[in-house]
Amino acid sequence: MGEFELIRRHFQRQRPARADVPLGIGDDCALLAPAPGQQLAVSTDMLVEGRHFLSTVDPAALGHKALAVNLSDLAAMGAEPLGFTLALALPQVDDAWLASFAQGLFALADTHGCELVGGDTTRGPLNLCLTVMGQVPPGLALRRAAALAGDDIYVSGTLGDARLALEVFRGGVALDAAAFTRVRERMERPTPRLALGLALRGVAHAAADISDGLSGDLAHILAASGVGATLHAPAVLQATSADLRGTGNPRALEYALTGGDDYELVFTAPSARRDAVAQAAIQAGVDVTRIGQIDAAPGLRLLDAQGREQALPGRAFDHFA
Amino acid sequence: MGEFELIRRHFQRQRPARADVPLGIGDDCALLAPAPGQQLAVSTDMLVEGRHFLSTVDPAALGHKALAVNLSDLAAMGAEPLGFTLALALPQVDDAWLASFAQGLFALADTHGCELVGGDTTRGPLNLCLTVMGQVPPGLALRRAAALAGDDIYVSGTLGDARLALEVFRGGVALDAAAFTRVRERMERPTPRLALGLALRGVAHAAADISDGLSGDLAHILAASGVGATLHAPAVLQATSADLRGTGNPRALEYALTGGDDYELVFTAPSARRDAVAQAAIQAGVDVTRIGQIDAAPGLRLLDAQGREQALPGRAFDHFA
Repeated sequence: MGEFELIRRHFQRQRPARADVPLGIGDDCALLAPAPGQQLAVSTDMLVEGRHFLSTVDPAALGHKALAVNLSDLAAMGAEPLGFTLALALPQVDDAWLASFAQGLFALADTHGCELVGGDTTRGPLNLCLTVMGQVPPGLALRRAAALAGDDIYVSGTLGDARLALEVFRGGVALDAAAFTRVRERMERPTPRLALGLALRGVAHAAADISDGLSGDLAHILAASGVGATLHAPAVLQATSADLRGTGNPRALEYALTGGDDYELVFTAPSARRDAVAQAAIQAGVDVTRIGQIDAAPGLRLLDAQGREQALPGRAFDHFA
Repeated sequence: MGEFELIRRHFQRQRPARADVPLGIGDDCALLAPAPGQQLAVSTDMLVEGRHFLSTVDPAALGHKALAVNLSDLAAMGAEPLGFTLALALPQVDDAWLASFAQGLFALADTHGCELVGGDTTRGPLNLCLTVMGQVPPGLALRRAAALAGDDIYVSGTLGDARLALEVFRGGVALDAAAFTRVRERMERPTPRLALGLALRGVAHAAADISDGLSGDLAHILAASGVGATLHAPAVLQATSADLRGTGNPRALEYALTGGDDYELVFTAPSARRDAVAQAAIQAGVDVTRIGQIDAAPGLRLLDAQGREQALPGRAFDHFA
């Protein structure tokens, strides 16, 4: 089977479903027509076997995750998905693998109306590169540089579950089967918080998605905004799942702060907008937890239940550390 | 050196130069603002060591080529470049390699005012994935499906030089040093025909870039348009360089038809627009050669100087063949 046949078989669907994708996969370029006056938000992520996923991963879960981590970047920008491109290097053509991968990929894409508009395939060590495109009205994007001293800091959902699953895989932590199934699902099929990102337009100041760990991704907001932050450890722990807290794991706080692969949002909003944040969370159907404040003084501080500063555990994940 | 430091050092430049890139590299997404009413053209390409380039390649040439092959897709669409994303998997952090790669990349990017707006880096087997974005007014994109029976078929520049260089590398063909330098340059630093693509808006019907070989890429136009074509072998040979023809290489025609890596344009235009095509070529500063016609009958035919049908040599390159 040739390269073009391979593409057609698994990835070329009917004509684009979206009216704002006048030309989809199969030409030199795809054509997109963002709504008049909207800006285009673009993000790219590359996933490598052994680094971003295990060789044993279910290909459907991988298809889901490869797109989810990209959609998560649109969510963090408050952008609405339009379409994405997919480039694949494959060590060999495995029909069953591709069918399963495509099923996981398209299930998530269809949930969010995000169209596959172009791609490339080649032989090589397994590598997936997706570039996602969305739209956002001028001035409403949630930029990392927009945090202001006095802002509240929030996170969506729960933190540290993906790290917990990884530790179970590594044999360092034991978990009952039901809990393992849940945290493994969180690691392999993260939920991009697109509805929350949209609902936070005009409410939140700065936002980022938590891919490398809360403390590391918050640090990017702080650096871009020229501010610092104080986090409250009990509040951070409140933003963890019962699966993580319930184990009595002494490293639950560390997993929440540095675990990585959460794909939740960390965002800041003025304290006068607490009701609006709560409304946005309800509208998006996801819990948010207020975990601290933005300070004028640079640096990231962590306070315990008694308000005493405690050391920040661990460090954010770095693909070249 | 951490991942973020690596990115900043080599790829993060001053604030975006383009006014229509309100937010460049460094946030969850970049923001682009295409001109009002224009459509967005998007293409992605993945390059793998040993498949698309040799391990011995000059990193500056690789930086050039990685972007050139993507810009070539915009050219084939008649689109004007806006920006691109770059995802890189690297086996290790090699500062000198990255500096040279970035130099080659940015030299070409700056020539065409195409801004690096986002990226990703990770450790892994060497892999480059670029996604390029451009803009084109609605209705003016040069689509593969737009060829009509009776259209002339043209190619830009010269064909087969990259293949000739590859054969010299492989030891199958001998070439004097000056000629080898020229054809190697053609292989390693292809010229995306962006000015020609723009000049052909409203003149050409269908277009594609020649990445896999003239006959294969023309076949995509024929399939998409539901037509056939007749090529004239002497005219195809006329669209080769003196370096290829001059060697008396008996496979010159085969290299021109199936060589690959040419990154010239193949396009069709009504015969009533021959003057306009000639004007577009002058405006773009590149030769174009008329090599045949589009037929209503499907299939691709090749005629010799006496008008007799001859067999099509070789086949187009397929990354999974």
